[in-house]
Amino acid sequence: MKLLRVGPPGREHPCAVDSDGVVRDLSAWLDDWTGLSLDPGTLAGTRERLAREAPSLPAVDLTAARVGPPVRPGGHLISIGLNYRAHAAEAGMELPAEPLVASKSPWTMAGPYDDLLLPPGESRTDWEVELAVVIGRRAQYLPDDCDPLAYVAGYCTANDVSERRWLLERGGQWIKGKSFETFTPLGPHLVTSDEVADPQKLGLTCRVNQRKMQDGSTADMVFGVAELIRYLSRFMLLRPGDVVLTGSPAGVALGRPDTPYLRAGDLVEVEVAGLGAQRQRCVPAPGAHGASGERERP
Amino acid sequence: MKLLRVGPPGREHPCAVDSDGVVRDLSAWLDDWTGLSLDPGTLAGTRERLAREAPSLPAVDLTAARVGPPVRPGGHLISIGLNYRAHAAEAGMELPAEPLVASKSPWTMAGPYDDLLLPPGESRTDWEVELAVVIGRRAQYLPDDCDPLAYVAGYCTANDVSERRWLLERGGQWIKGKSFETFTPLGPHLVTSDEVADPQKLGLTCRVNQRKMQDGSTADMVFGVAELIRYLSRFMLLRPGDVVLTGSPAGVALGRPDTPYLRAGDLVEVEVAGLGAQRQRCVPAPGAHGASGERERP
Repeated sequence: MKLLRVGPPGREHPCAVDSDGVVRDLSAWLDDWTGLSLDPGTLAGTRERLAREAPSLPAVDLTAARVGPPVRPGGHLISIGLNYRAHAAEAGMELPAEPLVASKSPWTMAGPYDDLLLPPGESRTDWEVELAVVIGRRAQYLPDDCDPLAYVAGYCTANDVSERRWLLERGGQWIKGKSFETFTPLGPHLVTSDEVADPQKLGLTCRVNQRKMQDGSTADMVFGVAELIRYLSRFMLLRPGDVVLTGSPAGVALGRPDTPYLRAGDLVEVEVAGLGAQRQRCVPAPGAHGASGERERP
Repeated sequence: MKLLRVGPPGREHPCAVDSDGVVRDLSAWLDDWTGLSLDPGTLAGTRERLAREAPSLPAVDLTAARVGPPVRPGGHLISIGLNYRAHAAEAGMELPAEPLVASKSPWTMAGPYDDLLLPPGESRTDWEVELAVVIGRRAQYLPDDCDPLAYVAGYCTANDVSERRWLLERGGQWIKGKSFETFTPLGPHLVTSDEVADPQKLGLTCRVNQRKMQDGSTADMVFGVAELIRYLSRFMLLRPGDVVLTGSPAGVALGRPDTPYLRAGDLVEVEVAGLGAQRQRCVPAPGAHGASGERERP
């Protein structure tokens, strides 16, 4: 099943794609893709019900509506660093001995086609195509003999956008460079885990202005998805709706001789094979302070 | 006004203390202390209404009910590091040139009297009394000529619990040592900002088994509350319900010759003057995996 959220920022409706490829609005059945609705057991029931009752639900025309991130923002948003050998090398950093865990503001989550807002001033904003894992079930202290993938609701395409000056030159933790608004486009849809045979066999690509910049495979992760979830569960409670960005392959701007950081007008296209493609246009962030009003609601 | 949340984990009701000191259940007026209900303008209206209509609301007996964290978990939970000179010295770290920003899992938030769960295995769990600032209004790119404190809903007492081995010995970012369940007791109440004349003149204390371990003042912060909010707003959108832990004064276990990390049975009492006192009993975390059921709901 493919899950989507469609509507203006902060007011998206939960949707799913039916067996005829029609997007259906599931608002009559559930509030949002969050919490218990993401439990693999609940999702199995929703899938069966959709197969039976899809025609009774409103069809959604995606050409006329905004697609939001496929899970409701507000969970924990975790970003694994340096999880591909060649990317660690291009970043000039040592391969970590155990997973490198950073986080992003949950308010960075954006729809897959939303504008990417470049921070004001001279910005070194960089792309990072990644496999995003959405947690479906509470996980804590997972033992060695359990399957961490059983705690996954599904997978989606992500762009783990990073501003390199704030990331590397402003002291200590990486969160500063990863937390600007719109810095985590997710989607277009969440593919439930029953439809992803092996999360370690997915191609990832990123194109900027049609030029292929990243071309990798999740087979090259240093720490695979199952290992990452088990590791995280050792020191934090994972809850439905939490999102784990699993690291980016080589090919980011930081690692290129000409460091071609994103500029206003650039078009970024990222895709994880089977999970759908995103497309962001880069625009300068409005420098306004306080309530921007037009974007996400509280 | 003092705001509280009372009830079992994940099912707390929003409450406030009326002018007679009676705790009133505000569920009839608002869903929870989150989002728009934390806006300083909305809070002013709620205060006036409470003054008029308090007797019409159910009274809550705190001796018979659990007190939860005073804001609904799920916002961004930020922890400022090394923000007191003497604490940086005792930790053997250099004073940062600009605020050191880390984050904690939002699912660490706990009530002020909940048990503090010590991670399994040999744990170096440490206390950190801190002033917590709760954001009340969207803030982004705040200019120099605005008052960042106008974006604050209120203040509360916090214990920014940290496990030093995961914090210092597991690679890179601090989030690992700060994200265990129950590691952010907040409250007992949120004191709205109109009742806190100066957030830089508050005493902070922490006692462990009656022995005073920390005794500081927010006057000694390296970066004050207003400066922290303005700084954070430069690289992230702050939203109502986000919580900023503003750093801890000297006196943690890490900085003591005998490094007396917390053990099962220990009693931790932290207090910020005027914001109320907390009390946590340390108990071993149940090592169960998956849905613990008894604690917070998704």
